[in-house]
Amino acid sequence: MTAKISPLAPQTLAHLPPMDGVRIATAAAGIKYADRTDLLLMRFDAPASVAGVFTQSLCASAPVEFCRANLVGGRARALVVNSGNANAFTGRKGSEAAEITARVASAAVGCPTEEVFLASTGVIGEPLDADGFSDTLRDLANATDTDGWSDAAEAIMTTDTYPKLATCQVMIDGVEVRINGIAKGAGMIAPDMATMLSFVVTDADIAPDVLQTLLADGVGDTFNAITVDSDTSTSDTLMLFATGAATARGAPRITDAHDPRLASFVTALHALMKDLALQIVRDGEGARKIVEIAVKGAASDAAAKIIALSIANSPLVKTAIAGEDANWGRIVMAVGKAGEMASRDRLQIWFGDIRVAVDGERDPDYSEDAASAVMKNPEIAITVDVGVGNGRSTVWTCDLTKDYVAINGDYRS
Amino acid sequence: MTAKISPLAPQTLAHLPPMDGVRIATAAAGIKYADRTDLLLMRFDAPASVAGVFTQSLCASAPVEFCRANLVGGRARALVVNSGNANAFTGRKGSEAAEITARVASAAVGCPTEEVFLASTGVIGEPLDADGFSDTLRDLANATDTDGWSDAAEAIMTTDTYPKLATCQVMIDGVEVRINGIAKGAGMIAPDMATMLSFVVTDADIAPDVLQTLLADGVGDTFNAITVDSDTSTSDTLMLFATGAATARGAPRITDAHDPRLASFVTALHALMKDLALQIVRDGEGARKIVEIAVKGAASDAAAKIIALSIANSPLVKTAIAGEDANWGRIVMAVGKAGEMASRDRLQIWFGDIRVAVDGERDPDYSEDAASAVMKNPEIAITVDVGVGNGRSTVWTCDLTKDYVAINGDYRS
Repeated sequence: MTAKISPLAPQTLAHLPPMDGVRIATAAAGIKYADRTDLLLMRFDAPASVAGVFTQSLCASAPVEFCRANLVGGRARALVVNSGNANAFTGRKGSEAAEITARVASAAVGCPTEEVFLASTGVIGEPLDADGFSDTLRDLANATDTDGWSDAAEAIMTTDTYPKLATCQVMIDGVEVRINGIAKGAGMIAPDMATMLSFVVTDADIAPDVLQTLLADGVGDTFNAITVDSDTSTSDTLMLFATGAATARGAPRITDAHDPRLASFVTALHALMKDLALQIVRDGEGARKIVEIAVKGAASDAAAKIIALSIANSPLVKTAIAGEDANWGRIVMAVGKAGEMASRDRLQIWFGDIRVAVDGERDPDYSEDAASAVMKNPEIAITVDVGVGNGRSTVWTCDLTKDYVAINGDYRS
Repeated sequence: MTAKISPLAPQTLAHLPPMDGVRIATAAAGIKYADRTDLLLMRFDAPASVAGVFTQSLCASAPVEFCRANLVGGRARALVVNSGNANAFTGRKGSEAAEITARVASAAVGCPTEEVFLASTGVIGEPLDADGFSDTLRDLANATDTDGWSDAAEAIMTTDTYPKLATCQVMIDGVEVRINGIAKGAGMIAPDMATMLSFVVTDADIAPDVLQTLLADGVGDTFNAITVDSDTSTSDTLMLFATGAATARGAPRITDAHDPRLASFVTALHALMKDLALQIVRDGEGARKIVEIAVKGAASDAAAKIIALSIANSPLVKTAIAGEDANWGRIVMAVGKAGEMASRDRLQIWFGDIRVAVDGERDPDYSEDAASAVMKNPEIAITVDVGVGNGRSTVWTCDLTKDYVAINGDYRS
């Protein structure tokens, strides 16, 4: 299923160093395709704190429901992820498949099933044969390695053209801690969340409720500010694990989200989440261009986000961008249909630094050539001031190309 | 701009007979393209009753604002429509262009500007040079003919591949009256309304407020139940005129929307509106298939419509249909993201007569071959029972093909 690598892919993939207390193994379990890694086991030597945010879909997948239930305990010893099958809309059989997988993992790792977390991505509606990969999963528990992050990112790919990886180091109370993150997603990407999986791990020692606050606060302008096609998956999962291994180096345990010692960590985590989110947009199915859409002057930040997403999800805007057409009339259309307050007579629109519209009409200094030159870039910034207030929001999307249609017109078969 | 005729076009175009009291003229005024009819004048010998419904866009075009103001009077002597330029987001110049056009028409026809109605469709944001076609418009007033309905439908086309025409006869109180309607639209089609223009005329004698009620009641499951690309135009306009010429043949004046003599007319008008609306979907940009999406079992009719539109507007559903892929997992996804109540464990999905999903999983009798056979048809019915109540709604859309991207990636240039 892997196509030619997206032209928007990062020049180099991040190298994620080993992290104390985390071991990884992957395998080709033949879940949908032969000879393709499709099963990931991540195990934590000691119980890690865990937090998660999930799809808003009312038809959430079995693994999502399983994780939501286990999050109450806040402790994780194992994460099992498969690609090739989303185990979504699979009814009672889907729940059973999730439970089988969790039981196999818990036995192999030696922990209660309440400390196992699951994610599945791939085709919706096909039964997932958990028994079929149970032996492979058992074997994985004895094959884990500390140096498997790249393999992990590859094992969870579906229509992705490259693995998404990010890492950083940051100080907590004078002790260096690390954050490693992987993600997958290329289509069915839209708030809230998408067929988007992301797993972020730190060796800092942070209580589960603090992790949950950090995730919830950080997701709004990162993973929930990207859209490829406005389609929200049944399986979206973002989890954050904290092993606490850094306590061996003197790191403190953090039990308050407002602990001032956490400030740098929060900033670094947010940057890493944004990095991973944008890597997903850069791999948008068929994408040739990544587009940052900043809306300001709205009645509120929430209104600004609705307008920004209306622009970002408009097929007519996205096809115009694919055609390198500075068609700001379609931006006006998308603002108008968003249903949020906007002043037609004060609206301003920029492509890059080129203001194309002002005071309800074409900018008198508008240069078609200058605007067209902006549209030829692979990275395009569109700014819209809707002229009614101080609300602002930024979202990211990609263009809509014939390749998107080709990829999605022939995915399941 | 006219492409090859849509494969979904009606086999034969309706022939609209002349209607007493209505005269039509069209011209190639060179508004955007040379040698293409782009200007329509429809004049009424005596003031007609008039009603209208318009785009919900907050950036409505100058002609839409002009018509809204004039509707208060409820009387029409002239309708002027141009294609090639939407006169939208054109600021003060746009209002001036509308006023110039109305003044020229009022002088040529001999009526107050309050009895002139306007519509413009085409590119957004470009100034409309009303002076440029004023002479042509004056000439048209002396060139009108009773037999110009086909020409009228052609003059208002933009990316349409065929003119949309419908006609019917119906009795009011034992007197035969006629309804003629034309429409245009192929992209930027979504509730509420679209770059969708439609003008319907009857020789019945019906008061303006009654016409307005009929339009408002009829639009919900016709023009506002179609979507090509979820993009709502700045210019959507549906107007209904009643000349009253049939009073010469003994037709009564109708002043009450609940008048029992109006029953057949209401039914016929509704059928004609649906006919025109579906002709627009059949001309959806790049469309190869027309899809009827019926949702039942929802918490309310309104909830059912939100779910139906979520399915109809999903790029992943629409590309799957283009690929003739019975990918009901994407239907589940679209139901889940709609945000309305649905029972994942009672959800049922049919493609045509083939039930593919039941009780939260794949139908045990599911036949991939049978479902795939349905998908090869140019007309596809998808039925979804979300299993929570009695709400129901039906909407229509088309597939999303590479041709949609091609048409819209290179429209303005």
